[in-house]
This record gives sequence, C-alpha cells and structure tokens, in this order.
Amino acid sequence: MCEANAYVVNNGKEELLMEAVDIIEPEDDKNLYRLVSIFGDQKIIKGKIIGMNLVNHKILFERAA
Amino acid sequence: MCEANAYVVNNGKEELLMEAVDIIEPEDDKNLYRLVSIFGDQKIIKGKIIGMNLVNHKILFERAA
Repeated sequence: MCEANAYVVNNGKEELLMEAVDIIEPEDDKNLYRLVSIFGDQKIIKGKIIGMNLVNHKILFERAA
Repeated sequence: MCEANAYVVNNGKEELLMEAVDIIEPEDDKNLYRLVSIFGDQKIIKGKIIGMNLVNHKILFERAA
C-alpha cells in the first residue's frame, strides 16, 4: 500500500497528524485540506503543505493561524 | 516503490506531467511547486494541487495563470 503519513511541523518537530493517508483535497478555503485515510477516517487541517516525500511516505504540513 | 504520477487537469482531462514523483515542495511563490522524480529529474509547475490519491498514485494539479 502506498499511503503516507501526514505530519504537522511545529518548531521544527514533526508531529503525527494522521497515519495511512490516502486522499488529500484542498477545501474551498485554500488553507484548508481534507485528509482521508485508507480506513475512511477524515480530518481537516488548516495549514499549508510544506513538503512531500512519497518514497518515505511523508507529507508535511505547517499550521496556518 | 510508492512514488506517484503527477497530472495536470486541463478541461477535465488528466495530462501526465511527471511519472514516479518522489518529492514535491512549494517554492517561495506559493503557486510554484518543484517536483523531483525517483530518477532525479526535476520540474517546476506553476499551479495548485487540486487533489491527491496516494493509493492510486495520483497527484493532480491545475495550472495557474
């Protein structure tokens, strides 16, 4: 399976936001992203994508105010 | 390997932008993304991410003007 883990980077530290993310979609507000895991869980994050490393299964977000 | 293919959606059609994408990073200009494939190729796209489906190895962009 090729899902990834989503992290929020906070003061240089990666905090796990969601494991096994399948789908990421921006919401109308461009600072909102909807994440859906392979288990069907959903989370909304207010932030922006600051990097992805798919081979390492990582997606990094930074929270927006 | 868990890289994905990046597509540009143009009039509802998905056009392949880059295969086997490993790294995606926004550049300073928030509408620019740098893509790096597992082969080391690089591409810059001016656009925004409109969706990702990692299990299906797809990342969708829409070009910005």
